Amino acid sequence: MYDTRKPHTGKVLEMIKQTWDTPYCKVEDRFMYPAIKLKGDYWMMDHTDGIGTKGHYHWELRTFRNAALDALAMNLNDLAMCFANPIKLQNHIFLPEDDNDAIFEIIDTLVEECRHRGIAMTGGETSIHNNMNGMDISMTVTGIFRGGRVNKYMSGDVLVGLKSSGLHSNGFTKVHQVLEPITGIVPEFVVPTRIYEIQKIHNSVNMVNHITGGAYTKLLPYAKDVDLHFDFDAPKIFHDLAEHCSSEEMYKTFNCGYGFVLSVPPDKVKYVINETGGCIIGHVEEGSGKIVIKSAFYDNPSNSVIVEYQ
Amino acid sequence: MYDTRKPHTGKVLEMIKQTWDTPYCKVEDRFMYPAIKLKGDYWMMDHTDGIGTKGHYHWELRTFRNAALDALAMNLNDLAMCFANPIKLQNHIFLPEDDNDAIFEIIDTLVEECRHRGIAMTGGETSIHNNMNGMDISMTVTGIFRGGRVNKYMSGDVLVGLKSSGLHSNGFTKVHQVLEPITGIVPEFVVPTRIYEIQKIHNSVNMVNHITGGAYTKLLPYAKDVDLHFDFDAPKIFHDLAEHCSSEEMYKTFNCGYGFVLSVPPDKVKYVINETGGCIIGHVEEGSGKIVIKSAFYDNPSNSVIVEYQ
Repeated sequence: MYDTRKPHTGKVLEMIKQTWDTPYCKVEDRFMYPAIKLKGDYWMMDHTDGIGTKGHYHWELRTFRNAALDALAMNLNDLAMCFANPIKLQNHIFLPEDDNDAIFEIIDTLVEECRHRGIAMTGGETSIHNNMNGMDISMTVTGIFRGGRVNKYMSGDVLVGLKSSGLHSNGFTKVHQVLEPITGIVPEFVVPTRIYEIQKIHNSVNMVNHITGGAYTKLLPYAKDVDLHFDFDAPKIFHDLAEHCSSEEMYKTFNCGYGFVLSVPPDKVKYVINETGGCIIGHVEEGSGKIVIKSAFYDNPSNSVIVEYQ
Repeated sequence: MYDTRKPHTGKVLEMIKQTWDTPYCKVEDRFMYPAIKLKGDYWMMDHTDGIGTKGHYHWELRTFRNAALDALAMNLNDLAMCFANPIKLQNHIFLPEDDNDAIFEIIDTLVEECRHRGIAMTGGETSIHNNMNGMDISMTVTGIFRGGRVNKYMSGDVLVGLKSSGLHSNGFTKVHQVLEPITGIVPEFVVPTRIYEIQKIHNSVNMVNHITGGAYTKLLPYAKDVDLHFDFDAPKIFHDLAEHCSSEEMYKTFNCGYGFVLSVPPDKVKYVINETGGCIIGHVEEGSGKIVIKSAFYDNPSNSVIVEYQ
């Protein structure tokens, strides 16, 4: 969905709101993304995302299965954040040349994942862009949810992190600039984004955030009258990146080891950790909306980084 | 939607059919594109398409309004072919660099068009692909229709054509190869695709085809026991292209002047022409599924071209 770090996003949302009351649909923005009111207490949420510049590496290494998983994960994880149950998807594959093997491997992966998850693949498109150096897979996934509450970080909560599978699908422009010239293209660049299953803990958390584009800045809109304090180490690839980036840049760009952050009341922590395999990475205090992270990186090994909008 | 000219498409459809019976959706392929059964006699159809390599010219000439209209047209015209009423859309903008002016012009155009048509813009994504030479706008539009019939060309019908606005958004790889080296990038390359309004004539036609990727080969699946005979002239830009392409290639790649073909019973022709501004460009005879076109082009000024699958 529209990247909330970008200055244009607020304006884009204001613009599209002009289309939200039609004879057929009523769209509301009371949740994290716009949703259409259905009958009773049900809502429908469409979500669109792709794999971005990571597609360059998938094309080079021909890791089409991982590319498909990345595109699916980028959408399903954002829908999971809203506890929306995905029911159908359309995909749009962009390739720099016609390549049936690539197309079949992508579709085969999506079919397998969608069958397993009860998602109907209703169609899609394949575009050959011979002016593109790499590939992308854009996807629009429709989710349904019931009720829907406004979530936020609560003072006194414990922050539980769910481990990421690596870089996921964010920050690859930076990876290309600083890491590839040193390491070349390595398998760590094409590990697929983990798809998180958090439906079970819906009623045991006050807030969940998918750490994606914008990384820890993504948490700011949901922490208005609290401060979030984090203290966790990061896997090796993030330390490698941190040799070329400031701590601040790291936590604004990369997941640094955790793909989901959950705000959990203290009495639910044990249950949530059991169900998700997560671990404690911080806590929530009364405050003024800061994200305070004890840096795991070389430039700043003992100090805290405050992640705020510029 | 998946390009039916491509050998892989049949296989892709067979693959995705494995996902069509879920606890939430039942998808059927009795219409031109897969559709989800809703309550009563209603169906929902999702459609995804973009502007392809034409995006190169829109980026070069900064014709972002036209780019947005092209992406919208590619989807709305295919939905119109199924008489599906568009109700909501998600868009995914791909740019080679961050450019707020481009983004606002695209969104502004879409908001204006969607308000006018009662389509809710439920969200989208903007991706910056610095490895892309040009832009694209992918869109997923949801349409609703009632009933739904299986359409086909009927012997004795008159073929009415609705004029295109020029090249539309197809054949640009060829335009780039053969025309651009001679003319440079000219305004004709970025004229937006016409958006056709045909809902009113739903009950007065036996078949409608959107002449898009694959051009006149798109008609073949719907003309199994008839032959379609066409005789029409083409606008200048297609004559320019035909200096470098065979007639056969022309009618397989370009709309050659008409964006929609309607199969109309003789007693409805006057009404359909009045409502649509179309003109007679051919007729339907009993036959074996051939598309026979009297060529308008230099290589073949008096002969007929038979367009068939290779």
